[in-house]
Amino acid sequence: MNLHPRAALRNGAHHYSLRVYYEDTDAAGVVYHASYLRFAERARTEALRDLGVPHQEMALQHGLMFMVRRIKVDYLGSALLDDSLCVITMPSTIRAASVELNQRVVRNTASERTLVELDIWLACIRLAGQRPARLPARWRDALNDMVQHAPAGARGKR
Amino acid sequence: MNLHPRAALRNGAHHYSLRVYYEDTDAAGVVYHASYLRFAERARTEALRDLGVPHQEMALQHGLMFMVRRIKVDYLGSALLDDSLCVITMPSTIRAASVELNQRVVRNTASERTLVELDIWLACIRLAGQRPARLPARWRDALNDMVQHAPAGARGKR
Amino acid sequence: MNLHPRAALRNGAHHYSLRVYYEDTDAAGVVYHASYLRFAERARTEALRDLGVPHQEMALQHGLMFMVRRIKVDYLGSALLDDSLCVITMPSTIRAASVELNQRVVRNTASERTLVELDIWLACIRLAGQRPARLPARWRDALNDMVQHAPAGARGKR
Amino acid sequence: MNLHPRAALRNGAHHYSLRVYYEDTDAAGVVYHASYLRFAERARTEALRDLGVPHQEMALQHGLMFMVRRIKVDYLGSALLDDSLCVITMPSTIRAASVELNQRVVRNTASERTLVELDIWLACIRLAGQRPARLPARWRDALNDMVQHAPAGARGKR
Repeated sequence: MNLHPRAALRNGAHHYSLRVYYEDTDAAGVVYHASYLRFAERARTEALRDLGVPHQEMALQHGLMFMVRRIKVDYLGSALLDDSLCVITMPSTIRAASVELNQRVVRNTASERTLVELDIWLACIRLAGQRPARLPARWRDALNDMVQHAPAGARGKR
Repeated sequence: MNLHPRAALRNGAHHYSLRVYYEDTDAAGVVYHASYLRFAERARTEALRDLGVPHQEMALQHGLMFMVRRIKVDYLGSALLDDSLCVITMPSTIRAASVELNQRVVRNTASERTLVELDIWLACIRLAGQRPARLPARWRDALNDMVQHAPAGARGKR
Repeated sequence: MNLHPRAALRNGAHHYSLRVYYEDTDAAGVVYHASYLRFAERARTEALRDLGVPHQEMALQHGLMFMVRRIKVDYLGSALLDDSLCVITMPSTIRAASVELNQRVVRNTASERTLVELDIWLACIRLAGQRPARLPARWRDALNDMVQHAPAGARGKR
Repeated sequence: MNLHPRAALRNGAHHYSLRVYYEDTDAAGVVYHASYLRFAERARTEALRDLGVPHQEMALQHGLMFMVRRIKVDYLGSALLDDSLCVITMPSTIRAASVELNQRVVRNTASERTLVELDIWLACIRLAGQRPARLPARWRDALNDMVQHAPAGARGKR
């Protein structure tokens, strides 16, 4: 049985594994630059689910959603067809109505050299009217808890 | 000034031109097979707009939309990065609550050799409840009018 | 730990699980029709890998690849954001230089109602020159073996 | 005849128009955040073509290509299905072996309010070996010429 891809929280970081398929690549023979945003979104969604704050619950119980406000992406290396990648997600700043995440895409090998690094600012907004809204306490606590378990110096490891 | 891509109805067929970008290709160096479904959808949308039945009007005035029920795609040749392509759209069968279209993707050259041929069955459905619904008379007339202006033998030209 | 998605061969069919993310959906609120072709390709790739014929080996050792020649897709139901889906892949016909597969996309629930059914014809081609080529015996055997373990009447279950 | 979308250089900025289709949207009812990277790439490609430095020529005559090294994206507003958008591309810094571009996505209306702003750093690399390479003089001149025709204060208009 092939358990790939999979996701798990450990040591204050969320790890989400995925495989690169033809759909993700382009004629330059590498992963298309916008595909990493899709990978990062999959990983964020599973990170929130594994933290106990799935976005269905956000939408249905609270009428809230996260909206991407800003993304900064550094492309440091290229992933290839069939590569097994891991997206490592760590919250970096948690505010009243927004969250900043650091996400690194690495190969699933011992070295974990960063191929792509993303810094993402998500705003919590009310579905009705799309106005900024405060993060419910339970989620802010879950995210803060994750930050406190992050290893010192984990961020920016290359 | 670069007028590419563009769309026009002529001789009972709708012509929609587009360029192939990196986003459309894969690591095999050609257009990814699912990208042709995106191209075909762009062309259908502009064909309906040029026939006077844009889908906003369908949705807002009539509460209707087209939903894809079946697609058959034949891949006969490969398109490459930077190719200038044309999607030629012709309705083939117009029924009370559904439409069948034939769409061919060709290179924008004199030969017009078909690279990909799609046969698409669209159901007209009511947005509320997603039940099948009759095509409004004005749209059925516009589509029938297009069928009657199609050149004999145009379909299936390779 | 979240082991989703995952893949496994059982009873002559390959099962590949995946989650629906925002990237897969469209403004109609459901999975975009072309996204199912991406899901099916992921599942085929893992099915071949689990059968012992990964496409890197095809390319590197034999100079061969599979190319999609024809796809027929029936859309029977709609998948939604966050749905857990399974793509069930079964070879239906194995020829000297091509393979036909049946793939069904179902929800990961007891009922396994088919949302989308795909019939896909893959040609084996030589990378150099893109001419048709015979399937190596080992792969034909692996695919035939899978066909023989398929449950009677499994195909087309809705 | 429908001439939309189209591209043109004027006043030191390149304007590329496009329509939003279902493929570009997501279940939140707006354009999916990664789709803007695809729009920006289309616009850059046409801007280079209209400047006389199409990327086929880069690849075939010089063995060079542009690779995305860094992207910063600010999401200021949401585009919707059927919207007519324009991507306005302006080089901001031209170096020996890299180029920085500012790209703004606006609605095709009089106000030209910026929905999304992208700052993109492209490295010129040699296809063989993927090492950084100097921009050929003719292209650097074309890009510099464009910068000098840009209207004062055009950048960052919101």
